[in-house]
Amino acid sequence: MSRPATPAIILVEPQLGENIGMTARAMANFGLSELRLVAPRDGWPNEKALAAAAGATAVVERACVFPDARSAVGDLRFVLATTARERGQMKRVVSPEAAMGEIRPRLAAGEGIGILFGRERTGLENDEISLADAIVTFPVDPALASLNLAQAVLLVAYEWFKGAGGGLPFGGEVRSPPAPREMVASLFDFLEAELEAVSFYPPDKRPVMTRNMRDMILRMGMSEQDVRTLRGALRALVEGRRTRRSMGG
Amino acid sequence: MSRPATPAIILVEPQLGENIGMTARAMANFGLSELRLVAPRDGWPNEKALAAAAGATAVVERACVFPDARSAVGDLRFVLATTARERGQMKRVVSPEAAMGEIRPRLAAGEGIGILFGRERTGLENDEISLADAIVTFPVDPALASLNLAQAVLLVAYEWFKGAGGGLPFGGEVRSPPAPREMVASLFDFLEAELEAVSFYPPDKRPVMTRNMRDMILRMGMSEQDVRTLRGALRALVEGRRTRRSMGG
Repeated sequence: MSRPATPAIILVEPQLGENIGMTARAMANFGLSELRLVAPRDGWPNEKALAAAAGATAVVERACVFPDARSAVGDLRFVLATTARERGQMKRVVSPEAAMGEIRPRLAAGEGIGILFGRERTGLENDEISLADAIVTFPVDPALASLNLAQAVLLVAYEWFKGAGGGLPFGGEVRSPPAPREMVASLFDFLEAELEAVSFYPPDKRPVMTRNMRDMILRMGMSEQDVRTLRGALRALVEGRRTRRSMGG
Repeated sequence: MSRPATPAIILVEPQLGENIGMTARAMANFGLSELRLVAPRDGWPNEKALAAAAGATAVVERACVFPDARSAVGDLRFVLATTARERGQMKRVVSPEAAMGEIRPRLAAGEGIGILFGRERTGLENDEISLADAIVTFPVDPALASLNLAQAVLLVAYEWFKGAGGGLPFGGEVRSPPAPREMVASLFDFLEAELEAVSFYPPDKRPVMTRNMRDMILRMGMSEQDVRTLRGALRALVEGRRTRRSMGG
């Protein structure tokens, strides 16, 4: 296997095919591929699940169906149950971030891991939660604590991928390196000489105004190309003014 | 205001009312409430948006509509643009987590902040990204890098709430404190005496077997009630056996 071992996502009696498809998509967004379904209400396969999966139809097509939660976790060695509300179970309660950190060494050691997600409206039953080693819940605003099924899966998968060192798909190298300071200083010289030539500075204010304008320019963090562009723009303004003046005179 | 200042979520030309509603719900899950819409394709108000918002209809009802992205960010002082692909813009690219960390002190200082999300299929246009101070993108599996609109909002809102110190809605106190060690040691005494009475231990194995079984029991991390329950169960087994034996004898 070239890809690292990943946890299985287990949906218990999901009702809407759309939610199964959106779950598959959320999984694939973050590198998860093993989907298990316990007694999906509308049977299996489900066309709506395939349609909602977008680029993740392979996850839907490879999903395995089980008659109950117990059989769905039968071969697994560590199981997490997600719940939105306190369920009176004497189990450890952890965040998605902590849970994904906890399963990583287990997966690396070859243990099969599963994460249970309950029905859209009613969640997991207590007997199903009893199969789990710990409960995962989400940091949510108590004013609206109920997450959509696929969105709950999304957050778990996102924390999985982040914890697995999954980086941003781009960035970091987009920006050109900053211009050498001599190039920036030369731009200062040019700009300040031109401003001097048009008597921009009140005599006693020149030092502070120069300092402030240099600060503004430095905060732009210009690349070499940025400096060339800005210098070209300033030169064009200066020469345009001279041309207009010479035409007018 | 009793609640802390929060960033505005700005959807640029969203196409599906369902996505607007799911966005509102994702926002409310994580304590965000200010939704701005730029020229929603199907007009406004939108019944499908209200239906999909579930418990977040107030966010939909208070949404403001603008004709273009420029007017939608006009009063804001720091703007982020979300993109899934590299767009050739010379801007800083940050993760949702880093971005939410960055805006927190700005919000605390009273600056209005907005986060732009583009159209479902085509994202933001380059002119719209140009309005932003930095780009936010998501750590995703390159094999399926495209996030659903509401799910992209969800991840930003989730990182906002996490960074704001939003904790789990329950947990931590669910579990009773561990039983005093004397209570556990007394259980060991009881169990080991009963096992001795039925000649469970091979003579030379008793020390190592005792140690292993004590370890197993300690790993259960029992509360006082757990110890009472386990002791009761063991006693019932012992007495049931004695009863059966005396009935049989």
